[in-house]
Amino acid sequence: MTRRGRPTLAAVAAEAGVSLATVSKVLNDRTDVSARTRARVRVVLDEHGYEPTAHRGARGRWLVSLVLPALDSPYALEVLRGVTASELDVVVCSLADSTATAPWTAQVLAPGRAGTIAVVPELTPAERGLLAGARTPCVVVDPTSSDPQLPSVGATNRAGGFAATRHLLDLGHRRIGVIGGPRQVLCSRERVEGYAAALTSHGLPLDPALVRSGDFHHAGGLAATRALLALPSPPSAVFAGSDEQALGAVDAARQAGLRVPEDLSVVGFDDLPVSRWASPALTTVRQPLAEMGATAAAMLLSLLDGVPLDQPQVELPTRLCVRATTAPPPRTSEGRRRPQAAVA
Amino acid sequence: MTRRGRPTLAAVAAEAGVSLATVSKVLNDRTDVSARTRARVRVVLDEHGYEPTAHRGARGRWLVSLVLPALDSPYALEVLRGVTASELDVVVCSLADSTATAPWTAQVLAPGRAGTIAVVPELTPAERGLLAGARTPCVVVDPTSSDPQLPSVGATNRAGGFAATRHLLDLGHRRIGVIGGPRQVLCSRERVEGYAAALTSHGLPLDPALVRSGDFHHAGGLAATRALLALPSPPSAVFAGSDEQALGAVDAARQAGLRVPEDLSVVGFDDLPVSRWASPALTTVRQPLAEMGATAAAMLLSLLDGVPLDQPQVELPTRLCVRATTAPPPRTSEGRRRPQAAVA
Repeated sequence: MTRRGRPTLAAVAAEAGVSLATVSKVLNDRTDVSARTRARVRVVLDEHGYEPTAHRGARGRWLVSLVLPALDSPYALEVLRGVTASELDVVVCSLADSTATAPWTAQVLAPGRAGTIAVVPELTPAERGLLAGARTPCVVVDPTSSDPQLPSVGATNRAGGFAATRHLLDLGHRRIGVIGGPRQVLCSRERVEGYAAALTSHGLPLDPALVRSGDFHHAGGLAATRALLALPSPPSAVFAGSDEQALGAVDAARQAGLRVPEDLSVVGFDDLPVSRWASPALTTVRQPLAEMGATAAAMLLSLLDGVPLDQPQVELPTRLCVRATTAPPPRTSEGRRRPQAAVA
Repeated sequence: MTRRGRPTLAAVAAEAGVSLATVSKVLNDRTDVSARTRARVRVVLDEHGYEPTAHRGARGRWLVSLVLPALDSPYALEVLRGVTASELDVVVCSLADSTATAPWTAQVLAPGRAGTIAVVPELTPAERGLLAGARTPCVVVDPTSSDPQLPSVGATNRAGGFAATRHLLDLGHRRIGVIGGPRQVLCSRERVEGYAAALTSHGLPLDPALVRSGDFHHAGGLAATRALLALPSPPSAVFAGSDEQALGAVDAARQAGLRVPEDLSVVGFDDLPVSRWASPALTTVRQPLAEMGATAAAMLLSLLDGVPLDQPQVELPTRLCVRATTAPPPRTSEGRRRPQAAVA
């Protein structure tokens, strides 16, 4: 606790293997020191009592904006969890709170913000221009398009859609519905493309009546599944495109007196915690959202340290998680499709 | 877009009804101007083109820390949504990310942070001391104790526990299990007290075997409900103390071959979005988490503006939401408690 007996800053510099100027920069919270060097110098400074413990972690950390589409989905929470686990100080802005007098772009361009991690389904040309003019680095999570100019972190959505559909085909399903998210969203289009590719690889035609669009939320999954179940020849399985939509699909099945998975199989996408809390637990395609957030944070840190990215477009792998909402199709469509209420 | 023809700052001051000095402070992002005045002046400044639109919303906003226990629950997301909807710029810190070299208290005490909103189930004496010494205001959400020194926002947990239990009693249930959260947490103790008070008001004794403790999460609800269902005389209903625990209770029932609500009624607490996505949708007690976050933000803004709080301890009302997981108890315990699997 006493400051007497501490080594000089020159001795600290020698111990940390850096110049005295660098030690001085770290002490003064200057940002032109790489994160790695800063961490090393700070450890040595701390060992010798140069920094009060309480300030150590937060001083000299970059303050960045994390822009999320809305804070109404566990999807946002997963990404946030990954980003905050980094060495960044993260100001959270929601597009849902954006107003004419306080637009979200103002947050991003606010003085003191070193950079941005953006999870925004769509940018208007004006917003794109503003961000481009911000002169602070930006990394996009779940990009809406493959823009080689824009550092981004996505997931292998096409492979995920393929795996989900192949799982249902392997169980014996032949009429499989798919519910995408909003049509303009890249990740959604890719999942539906994966679905189509799996059908093709099984020599099955694509029936446009089985391809629906949702909003990625419960309501969208509920409405689209109702429509699918009302078809003259309804599907025996639904690949729901997101976990929330899958929960809506399960709800639609229950409301129609169908059991999941005995009468209708359902596959989600995301592997949000809620997919494991559902009863029965959801079969789903895991996309590592927290890891995507953490990767975006690491990329932003690198850019802030002036280190160019080896790989500006990163795609993390998705993985099928088979749980309890998928099973072989009912043997006869009419024989097993009896309402549960009549049984109980 | 041109700056010619703009009124002078003195004219702006007159139009906004403030002094020229105040206008100058607002222009210079000084913080010694009340939020209300700042907003008024900024509107006038903006009307006359004094501030670029892109910067208007973010400039001069207070930067505060929001400390959350962990980012693994929709509970955290709800509070965050309320806080970020305010005029505060919110840096999110998670206790789960706190390490010896980067403790969460460092975030709170970081230079530039004007205040703190803390959602922390427990503080160590050292952490309490650090926060007290921070000299920046702090508002606690869901306080762990009723400390009259600490501005806080809670909910009427006791009334909520009472309403949940009375609903089950009114349906005819007499053996009702309760699952609290961690014992040391005030809100959890209060919910169990409400449960006990409802039983007493019906002239029913409190059976300690029916009172369990969880972790507020799915796993805790699952384990506690399994234990309750294994009792020689199991309950016909469970008040699960949180929505995640209620989902765990529904899972435990399903695994035991019981139907919800025919064989076992379940009531949650929180009214998280997931309670409406569950199938069947959860009967639960709504606590307005987003409103609690927004209220905490408003209180912190007031303290930052130097305006003392009329009411430093706020409790927002809870409300029973009856959905599909509660029904009258089975007529005969054995007659209806047959496994669903045997039926299907």
